[in-house]
Amino acid sequence: MNQARKPIRLTAKLLKNIDAYWRAANYLSVGQIYLYDNPLLKRPLKITDIKRMLLGHWGTTPGQNFIYVHLNRIIKQHDLNMIYVSGPGHGGPALVGNTYLEGTYSEIYPDISQDEAGLQKLFRQFSFPGGIPSHVSPECPGSIHEGGELGYSLSHSFGAVFDNPDLIVACVVGDGEAETGPLATSWHSNKFLNPLSDGAVLPILHLNGYKIANPTVFARIEPEELDQFLRGCGWTPYYVEGDEPSLMHAAMAETLDSVMSQIRSIQHNARSNADLTRPRWPMIVLKSPKGWTGPKWVDGQQIEGSFRSHQVPLSDPASQPEHLQMLEDWLKSYRPEELFDEAGRLVPELAELAPKGERRMSANPHANGGQLLRDLIMPDFRNYAVTVPTPGAVKAADTHELGVFLRDVVKLNQPQRNFRIFGPDETLSNRLNAVFEVTRRQWDARTQDSDEFLAEDGRVMEMLSEHQCEGWLEGYLLTGRHGLFNSYEAFIHIIDSMFNQHAKWLKITAQLPWRQPIASLNYLLASHVWNQIHNGFTHQDPGFIDLVVNKKAAVVRVYLPPDANCLLSVWDHCLRSRHYVNVVIAGKYQAPQWLSMDAAVKHCSEGIGIWHWASNDHGNAPHVVMACCGDVPTLETLAAVSILNEHLPELKVRVVNVVDLMKLQPQSEHPHGLSDSHFDALFTEDKPVIFAFHGYPWLIHRLTYRRNNHENIHVRGYKEEGTITTPFDMTVLNDLDRFHLVMDTIDRLPQTGEKGIHLKQQLQSKLIAHRQYINQYGEDMPEILNWQWGRSHVIKPRLAG
Amino acid sequence: MNQARKPIRLTAKLLKNIDAYWRAANYLSVGQIYLYDNPLLKRPLKITDIKRMLLGHWGTTPGQNFIYVHLNRIIKQHDLNMIYVSGPGHGGPALVGNTYLEGTYSEIYPDISQDEAGLQKLFRQFSFPGGIPSHVSPECPGSIHEGGELGYSLSHSFGAVFDNPDLIVACVVGDGEAETGPLATSWHSNKFLNPLSDGAVLPILHLNGYKIANPTVFARIEPEELDQFLRGCGWTPYYVEGDEPSLMHAAMAETLDSVMSQIRSIQHNARSNADLTRPRWPMIVLKSPKGWTGPKWVDGQQIEGSFRSHQVPLSDPASQPEHLQMLEDWLKSYRPEELFDEAGRLVPELAELAPKGERRMSANPHANGGQLLRDLIMPDFRNYAVTVPTPGAVKAADTHELGVFLRDVVKLNQPQRNFRIFGPDETLSNRLNAVFEVTRRQWDARTQDSDEFLAEDGRVMEMLSEHQCEGWLEGYLLTGRHGLFNSYEAFIHIIDSMFNQHAKWLKITAQLPWRQPIASLNYLLASHVWNQIHNGFTHQDPGFIDLVVNKKAAVVRVYLPPDANCLLSVWDHCLRSRHYVNVVIAGKYQAPQWLSMDAAVKHCSEGIGIWHWASNDHGNAPHVVMACCGDVPTLETLAAVSILNEHLPELKVRVVNVVDLMKLQPQSEHPHGLSDSHFDALFTEDKPVIFAFHGYPWLIHRLTYRRNNHENIHVRGYKEEGTITTPFDMTVLNDLDRFHLVMDTIDRLPQTGEKGIHLKQQLQSKLIAHRQYINQYGEDMPEILNWQWGRSHVIKPRLAG
Repeated sequence: MNQARKPIRLTAKLLKNIDAYWRAANYLSVGQIYLYDNPLLKRPLKITDIKRMLLGHWGTTPGQNFIYVHLNRIIKQHDLNMIYVSGPGHGGPALVGNTYLEGTYSEIYPDISQDEAGLQKLFRQFSFPGGIPSHVSPECPGSIHEGGELGYSLSHSFGAVFDNPDLIVACVVGDGEAETGPLATSWHSNKFLNPLSDGAVLPILHLNGYKIANPTVFARIEPEELDQFLRGCGWTPYYVEGDEPSLMHAAMAETLDSVMSQIRSIQHNARSNADLTRPRWPMIVLKSPKGWTGPKWVDGQQIEGSFRSHQVPLSDPASQPEHLQMLEDWLKSYRPEELFDEAGRLVPELAELAPKGERRMSANPHANGGQLLRDLIMPDFRNYAVTVPTPGAVKAADTHELGVFLRDVVKLNQPQRNFRIFGPDETLSNRLNAVFEVTRRQWDARTQDSDEFLAEDGRVMEMLSEHQCEGWLEGYLLTGRHGLFNSYEAFIHIIDSMFNQHAKWLKITAQLPWRQPIASLNYLLASHVWNQIHNGFTHQDPGFIDLVVNKKAAVVRVYLPPDANCLLSVWDHCLRSRHYVNVVIAGKYQAPQWLSMDAAVKHCSEGIGIWHWASNDHGNAPHVVMACCGDVPTLETLAAVSILNEHLPELKVRVVNVVDLMKLQPQSEHPHGLSDSHFDALFTEDKPVIFAFHGYPWLIHRLTYRRNNHENIHVRGYKEEGTITTPFDMTVLNDLDRFHLVMDTIDRLPQTGEKGIHLKQQLQSKLIAHRQYINQYGEDMPEILNWQWGRSHVIKPRLAG
Repeated sequence: MNQARKPIRLTAKLLKNIDAYWRAANYLSVGQIYLYDNPLLKRPLKITDIKRMLLGHWGTTPGQNFIYVHLNRIIKQHDLNMIYVSGPGHGGPALVGNTYLEGTYSEIYPDISQDEAGLQKLFRQFSFPGGIPSHVSPECPGSIHEGGELGYSLSHSFGAVFDNPDLIVACVVGDGEAETGPLATSWHSNKFLNPLSDGAVLPILHLNGYKIANPTVFARIEPEELDQFLRGCGWTPYYVEGDEPSLMHAAMAETLDSVMSQIRSIQHNARSNADLTRPRWPMIVLKSPKGWTGPKWVDGQQIEGSFRSHQVPLSDPASQPEHLQMLEDWLKSYRPEELFDEAGRLVPELAELAPKGERRMSANPHANGGQLLRDLIMPDFRNYAVTVPTPGAVKAADTHELGVFLRDVVKLNQPQRNFRIFGPDETLSNRLNAVFEVTRRQWDARTQDSDEFLAEDGRVMEMLSEHQCEGWLEGYLLTGRHGLFNSYEAFIHIIDSMFNQHAKWLKITAQLPWRQPIASLNYLLASHVWNQIHNGFTHQDPGFIDLVVNKKAAVVRVYLPPDANCLLSVWDHCLRSRHYVNVVIAGKYQAPQWLSMDAAVKHCSEGIGIWHWASNDHGNAPHVVMACCGDVPTLETLAAVSILNEHLPELKVRVVNVVDLMKLQPQSEHPHGLSDSHFDALFTEDKPVIFAFHGYPWLIHRLTYRRNNHENIHVRGYKEEGTITTPFDMTVLNDLDRFHLVMDTIDRLPQTGEKGIHLKQQLQSKLIAHRQYINQYGEDMPEILNWQWGRSHVIKPRLAG
């Protein structure tokens, strides 16, 4: 509240107007679902006025219209900075209708004008081929949450208010959605909110009573149980319940007044009294009939207040004349003639009820976050370089080095408060320890002396729920900030479906000129499949990238940096990028470092390349290409090359390393894809390629099947063999280890002859010896751990005996 | 309780023995984490007695040992039929240790004998290459829940007790796990439990205080909030809190007595008084220090009662002598000499505390469900055939027909109560309506008059949480019953990660001879990507199968039946199969039927085949192979073939339909894979193949890249283009429609010459006309909907003008 405003009294007149505005929104909603023509009912409704296919969801819509108009009043009353998140995404007609009523829709889509012609187009486009979807989709102004897949509304809302102290997100939670796991745990987000520096979320649990065909759990437990549940989740619930509009308007308005005053008082207490004790934030439970104000009974069955109002209550007006009449009666029950003038424009007295300009929830810039996006202040990543005098000469833990860089990203952007790190209690486990030198985990529940790195205000958000982390981060990004999700590789599958939905959102918004690009959704997947020494088979799944590459090439990027300097270079790029999903997979254990920073920058900017220092083809045609992608496969490949160099020195070996996985796809399929001639220049047109890959081997085939040399590409990767064992033994179990790679090479090069056969025998003995050793001592044979690039590869001593 | 038993009094002596048993379990746990040799500490501990790599998780272990011994007492006290589900899966040492103490471990693994030699092996194998994982993995007797990925313990437990009225599952819920979404919603499972015909779940929330490096939310909210939360979830919590063992033993024993008496009384009330009012089931909150009884302080840092006890508290005894001494002191603090005799055997007085035979939780047959598995009584699926006089002559909704069959599966197995259908409120939406002729949705919350198909007892389980449905079903299957998960195709990604874990469980258990095979996990994915007329882009994702095929070929099966008779045949197979994951994708809208039941049975048993009736190559080499997989691609392919037949009758076209997707993989990769010669016989070695696929097109390439004719295979599928529109228009947006398929064919057959070029032009005009029509009327051009196989394909009239 920047200035004193004249309070708006809750008069009978005002309540009457609110009701009229609600009727207008309901009218527009029914119009969208049904009307092809005759939008103002200026003549009796005919069959040809009705769409041939009736699609849409009425059930949740009137309740959401009710909420929307009341939020409008409170926004005007207090000059609030508020946006609306619609959990029950099916309420598309409500949100589209309201954004139209307040003018935003016509500003963005001038063709949908505020007159009869515009109304007709508004109605016709809804759930119509070439038009707009039935959800609160990206096309709907004011939306950061489509809700086609349910469960993420509260997480998105909290993400939106982090570091936005003036923002309030009114989040409508459907009682169906409330049964999902992600929503169930997201009630606890209030333990991670700082009343001083974050904004407020006002959950409005819409007890609509039914899902598609079932009642909802929350509508059928005892009211005192629901109250206990919500208080147990740390909220103070306020109840608005009924179906008589005039009583409901008064109750809702008064409740919103109370709730707003409580939010103000909590924030005042935190901000003026520095009291950061976790508050019990207010929320609203709105119990209203599903399909409220719609047909009460149709064909002898109850509709209003029943699951039967979920979609289209009068399903067949075209062939049932009584349905047509009921539809006309229903539309007329809203008395459109009082609401719209002859030209089809909302009457001024009602239009006056909506907030103005950017205070309209549909025009609030937070809901088009790219408008507010400021670049991160980035340290020069080259300053964090690991010194690599020669390849393999030093070891480092890749993510640990990244942590130091991220620490300074955190530090430099503290003043603008637009960068956070999200993860399910894995920031330390993934070795990003350094960030805790400058920040803490944000935590607003109780603390104890022995706790570490907790504070009411912090840049790291950790809750043991991948759903929460993903949802919070999405909300944070969608409102114009930056961040990353740091997770175990295997468990990122928990949010597969959330990734899918976000990638779809990015695809559609990229096509909408009025939507500004947002910061990329960045994943750091550490503790990966080859680094599961503490856990084993359940923690081994590199398949997230298989899922990712199904999404639109314009949106997805996948990086597998082989060492720390490459990892730094890649993250510098990811944090600067816009409107992508970047997946970065990295190791967390001490491992050999290959490239100096200069070489790493060059390698990462090309995304793929020949490692000449590891190759001995000297620009000529090689006998074999040893390709590698991922930190562990790169290590094993180089170890294999060193065995080949030592024992079959006449073999010309070329080493190709892949950082940017999408380089492998044809140019026609992905913007990063190499041209065929470039691909051939790296992989040859006819030589064997032994490809050591981080993930499931089939993915490489999927990406390269159109390449000239594809039939010679032999891929090793994770083939679902694993248990609790050393990283090296994991490669053995999956035939990705140095010894198997050498044997694969020999198998494809008959010219290695007797020497090759002999070497294979030696290596097989070596593998047997390793198996015996590890089964006895529980750790790798020392000479394997001690191997270093450039030194002779010791395979003899143990074999000689 | 089959017979009156002498009550066991809770004497001081008994409590003392319970404490000793607990110490024994703790000793075994520490031993597993640390000891390589010297298992009974018969000589001072040396560095060589310690494993070189120390892996495992101590933090949760002593609490679980505490729970286990107390459950043993109550089992003996009441002759209970009880199993143990360990939510914090990291408690592997606890469960392995306890199953060893009660003898089961040695019975299953005789090598791990109950003497000093066996003890040494028990210790050495833990978290050791070639040994057993650190979680409660499939190798651990008594486990149906590994817990490597957190969140599913309660859902699994409820699945286990459905239809097992005498079974009680003691489910330890970790307070870290409790933060996950799936666990958060699974508290509400109690609204879906029938106290008459289902068993009981006893949740034991282990308030251990910390996760990996953070406190837990439930440990840091106010006690009254936690109490409200649990009561709000419908439970009656009992609290056991402290750290002084003797007080804790008494408190836990008394609490378990109260809780058991309450469970008995609830069940008695339901079963004798027919009172099915939803009870408030009891549960226990156990608040004990993380790492209880372990080292209190190490290197100046608090360990017991802190997150630092999560893994291995004394991390470096090899190089820090004081750590070695502390370890010895720690082990000796359990006074092993009182617990084990000279030979290394648990002393008889303590061994007596464990239940006997199958009453041991580790030997309870419910935890090795295959032992209890009874075949389903199956109706003859041929009796549900759709009569198909000629291909395409009749229409039917595939899943609707399946519903009639499933209805009778439900009915026939009502007496043995071992079949349930799970789904997130989509049984009706997916058109399985017929099942409600014989059963209801099980629902134990309040009901209202307008509800449909709800009852306290029913075979259909619907909650709007894919996590719950999957978890319940998994628990049901793991305890030896049958079922299916019926979901929207796009949203099955919500449980990607649960599928991953279950597939891993199946892989490992298949290798354990003592684990009996269980019924397959069957998915019915309807409302698929091409059937999203009501929803649009968010509901379109056919990528679950991309994920599925990453798992072990021995475990996964994918079926895409093209019509109702094939769907019936496939489901007959799936419901009889064992130890697989079967994914079946099917349409729900009225669509042409192609095969008579006899033809369908033959086609499905082969899994792939030439449809001779649709081909005109008459056993000769075709010019083109039109391949199809999935109901909509099959329809479009046949429509394309009919255009080709009419306009380019000289073209020899072969139609190949794929039901069993894994037929495409090489024989070496999947047991269903075709031999190369068989593949060549279907797809030729050199002719163009136009492949219309249900899912993302790249999957077909991934499966076929080693096939001789791969480079001629041209795949159309979903390429992430979609919105709310008709199923046919969806195919147009993704170039999978009949017109594009014909144009693709012409492009690959230059011999079609001028005629081909002319036809392409006609089809392009047709597509433009269709776009105009659908944009105007919102529905497909009538002649497209009216097309029927075998009748002339009308493309002329509209083009002539």
